[in-house]
Amino acid sequence: MDVDLVQYWLLPFPYSLQRTRAGAMDINVVNALTYEDFVKLFGNVVEKCPLISAAIWSHRPFKDLADIEAHITEFILSLPDSGKEGILRCHPDLAGRDLQSGTLTRESQEEQSQAGMTTLDSAEVLQMYRLNSEYKERFGFPFVICARLNKKADIVGQLSERLKNDRAVERERAIEEVKKICRLRLRNIVLSDIQTKL
Amino acid sequence: MDVDLVQYWLLPFPYSLQRTRAGAMDINVVNALTYEDFVKLFGNVVEKCPLISAAIWSHRPFKDLADIEAHITEFILSLPDSGKEGILRCHPDLAGRDLQSGTLTRESQEEQSQAGMTTLDSAEVLQMYRLNSEYKERFGFPFVICARLNKKADIVGQLSERLKNDRAVERERAIEEVKKICRLRLRNIVLSDIQTKL
Repeated sequence: MDVDLVQYWLLPFPYSLQRTRAGAMDINVVNALTYEDFVKLFGNVVEKCPLISAAIWSHRPFKDLADIEAHITEFILSLPDSGKEGILRCHPDLAGRDLQSGTLTRESQEEQSQAGMTTLDSAEVLQMYRLNSEYKERFGFPFVICARLNKKADIVGQLSERLKNDRAVERERAIEEVKKICRLRLRNIVLSDIQTKL
Repeated sequence: MDVDLVQYWLLPFPYSLQRTRAGAMDINVVNALTYEDFVKLFGNVVEKCPLISAAIWSHRPFKDLADIEAHITEFILSLPDSGKEGILRCHPDLAGRDLQSGTLTRESQEEQSQAGMTTLDSAEVLQMYRLNSEYKERFGFPFVICARLNKKADIVGQLSERLKNDRAVERERAIEEVKKICRLRLRNIVLSDIQTKL
């Protein structure tokens, strides 16, 4: 047996999720988590919506991480339009009030930082404020984009572009971004040290 | 014009919701809230499920507080069984880990305190721990009861009694309690000083 693998298996359960050498999380360990630990671990893969992770725990056992993601997607798509808009409204503005006041979730802070939202100059902050305000006024929910997959210029460009959509189209467009964010947050949980999260 | 009413109207909007002398919140003020202020104010009427308040904001204008409550109920009942169980899993144990470690939400802290859960002796804490564990093991979600409407002895009694239900019956039973908790939290928001909440 591979030595690395043995070492992983010797780590105390459930404080460290067991992984193979390739870094893939052992799905059996996830399936053995209590709902409390599951929600603690996966509760923010959709921003401020622990309800969603808590709900899909009902579908254990999961086949793999893609199966968890598929259940989350299925749950989101099963919601009425108001529910999808509710998910969007749980997201912070990009370069907005929560970033300025330090009240972003850890995940959002990392993502906005990676997209350059934490190092805007004052003209750029003002531009984001104006575009965000215009967007929220038009749609009644905040502009959501997967910040990890976009640079500053792309974000401003897409925000301006998507402002032209009608509400139903834009709601679906934004939910696609929620799914991308969720996928990367799930992957991040698998690849990072679980010990710091439980 | 009534002097009390004038004084309420002179308070800076939106820092204080305007009320009539009888204490009834002016629904027009609620309807004028941004989704951000609405979620800040009503986001925890269902424990740790801001998604729900954020969703029903789509249904403005509301006729009155009962209309807000009706939309919340409708949203909850529209969820699949997994979603209802997800709501339950966002609730803390009564007299459990979150109470001991001081990590309850403000609302739960007040409710558990009022039901006498903060002044249990060690034998009672152990009894609650055992019953909660048995319940969670059986149903896969925590025991939820409207603590404001029940005293300590009733809570223990109902916990023992509801353990005998089958899962589907108990899920619906627990969701009825979520609705009672929500109703009282809504009422509490209306009657308390809004200035401390926004």
